[in-house]
Amino acid sequence: MSDSWIADRMRLIDASGIRKVFDLAANMQNPVNLSIGQPHFDTPEPVKAAMHKAVDEGKNAYSQTQGIKPLLDLIQGSINEEYGHADRQAFVTSGTSGGLMLALCTLVNPGDEVIVFDPWFVMYKHLTTLAGGKFVQVSTYPDFRIDISKVEAAITDKTKVILFNSPANPTGAVASEEEVKQLAELCRDRNIALVSDEIYRAFCYDRPFVSPAKYNDQTIVIDGFSKSHSMTGWRVGWCHGPAHIVQQMMKLQQFTFVCAPHPAQWAAIEAWNYDVTKWVDEYREKRDFLKSELSSHFDVHGAEGAFYMFLPAPGGSGTEFVKRAIENNLLIIPGNVFSPTDTHFRISYAASQETLAKGAEILRKLASDMN
Amino acid sequence: MSDSWIADRMRLIDASGIRKVFDLAANMQNPVNLSIGQPHFDTPEPVKAAMHKAVDEGKNAYSQTQGIKPLLDLIQGSINEEYGHADRQAFVTSGTSGGLMLALCTLVNPGDEVIVFDPWFVMYKHLTTLAGGKFVQVSTYPDFRIDISKVEAAITDKTKVILFNSPANPTGAVASEEEVKQLAELCRDRNIALVSDEIYRAFCYDRPFVSPAKYNDQTIVIDGFSKSHSMTGWRVGWCHGPAHIVQQMMKLQQFTFVCAPHPAQWAAIEAWNYDVTKWVDEYREKRDFLKSELSSHFDVHGAEGAFYMFLPAPGGSGTEFVKRAIENNLLIIPGNVFSPTDTHFRISYAASQETLAKGAEILRKLASDMN
Repeated sequence: MSDSWIADRMRLIDASGIRKVFDLAANMQNPVNLSIGQPHFDTPEPVKAAMHKAVDEGKNAYSQTQGIKPLLDLIQGSINEEYGHADRQAFVTSGTSGGLMLALCTLVNPGDEVIVFDPWFVMYKHLTTLAGGKFVQVSTYPDFRIDISKVEAAITDKTKVILFNSPANPTGAVASEEEVKQLAELCRDRNIALVSDEIYRAFCYDRPFVSPAKYNDQTIVIDGFSKSHSMTGWRVGWCHGPAHIVQQMMKLQQFTFVCAPHPAQWAAIEAWNYDVTKWVDEYREKRDFLKSELSSHFDVHGAEGAFYMFLPAPGGSGTEFVKRAIENNLLIIPGNVFSPTDTHFRISYAASQETLAKGAEILRKLASDMN
Repeated sequence: MSDSWIADRMRLIDASGIRKVFDLAANMQNPVNLSIGQPHFDTPEPVKAAMHKAVDEGKNAYSQTQGIKPLLDLIQGSINEEYGHADRQAFVTSGTSGGLMLALCTLVNPGDEVIVFDPWFVMYKHLTTLAGGKFVQVSTYPDFRIDISKVEAAITDKTKVILFNSPANPTGAVASEEEVKQLAELCRDRNIALVSDEIYRAFCYDRPFVSPAKYNDQTIVIDGFSKSHSMTGWRVGWCHGPAHIVQQMMKLQQFTFVCAPHPAQWAAIEAWNYDVTKWVDEYREKRDFLKSELSSHFDVHGAEGAFYMFLPAPGGSGTEFVKRAIENNLLIIPGNVFSPTDTHFRISYAASQETLAKGAEILRKLASDMN
């Protein structure tokens, strides 16, 4: 019987949290959907035009695993300018999830510890398990700020990686320059690999984005076009870090992802040069709107970037509150999908103004009913 | 110092073989290139048109991880018709390499043994290492036939997977119905997961293709559009197998590849319905041509499918022969890239008629000089 065939690592991975929510939501008709983790606009027209051109020009075969040279040159040039690190090398990945998988499998030995900030992006937990690592959580509740003394306390001689995400999914928190600096220096001082997931970097509303690579030249940065340019289905991202680490990651990419989709890499050149300010401004307005709509009924923390808010559930249980929300035609995600704690829920404001207004109304009503 | 950061698995992966060849080739001007492992024609126009349409229609965000329904329905329908297995489920992967990675990481525990046929496709070795498995090689030299008694002799109580590839890269061997049946039944009888890489399935010149899934309903099949429809840079493949295995593989896909590139999945529907007979006929003619050109100087075995020949190197060393070939402006790959043995070299006939004629002439001359 082939049931015995499943490797142990797969038994450690329970990816059913989100599925349970969508099972609950299966019978919803036209839900007010605040669950979507991707932009609500389509890929910009010039980027689509560049995709067409690449396909027509026959850029359809494998590219080199590190990515096409003109795109690589743009990324490398920008990184050299931003950081001026002698040893920082870039390569093109199959989305940020691809970059994260390569980073963790390149760095983590079975039994090594990976520190993450709770609540965390779902994928971090499973990718750590895939690499054989132990998932060590540093709480950022209730305000989603990083307390460096908690990070220090979590470090052991098995700590190999700290996985950092600002702006963060699911909280929308944007780390301050001081938080970033402390974390970067701690990793440098303790010889811990700092992996910085910067996929929401473009979406900062209250303070400028700071990368830990500014303070720690050994930082491994994962980034991509998916969220900023609405290219989630095109699977193009990039990574930069110390050259000898990047070379190992590229070696692994060669026989897993092979290369990022080739024509989409040519389109990414156009995306690189495309100004997304108008989208950032729009999401800032949506954030402002939701915050003003919800502040009377909810304690809003984080919500300084990306397009998420992570709010305490009236009644105390994220799962129960989400059930109630679904009964009221609102689709949101319970906090225990992102955390061992089930006290919150996540809303995404990557949605139309109409949807946001309806969603806010339902949330206020539910909060009034339950408090 | 971050040099200590690299995980042990990465130190076990030496992917430098091919790179050394390309380093040697770096200074070649207009080489006669018989090294390319992908079709020499571009993606068919109707498939490109379908890609354009999907992009224009906004099919640019994530798809469901298992793939878009219309493509899945086509694949599932075809599989149901071909095999009639009650429990066989299909899903869309990010190329065949994606499917292979998911299969091995889903099935192989650290220390488990994976049996492969030597010479093997390069990726098999590294993916086995990634999953923590031990790579066990069953020789098919000199005629690249499968000797089932050798396979039986290689099985231990740690054998978890047999990884099978017909038509094969690098030999072009197509397993006979009897070879396939014996292997399928052996795996069934010994409760070993049989993973069948069928990416070259369309390219069989001397006998019909037979999948081991015909004789073993627990076979996990990996397939894709890359080679048959020249979509290597689009990263779309598929997998089918027992439902509970496929569900584990999809779980892993969800947080590694996420989904196959979305617009390319819509184009793949067009590819599924596109007749590639003319390309298969063309490659058969190229195979016939090369075989007749080379048989006087080389023992040709395999070469019944895909677009490869794996020939004994005059002088006995693949590496030395490839050096001589490169000195004579011919780019080919030494056999030790695909094998612990360095007695052969691989040529690909995915090239123009002119290139093939020139390549054959150089090969004959080198063979005459060295014998």
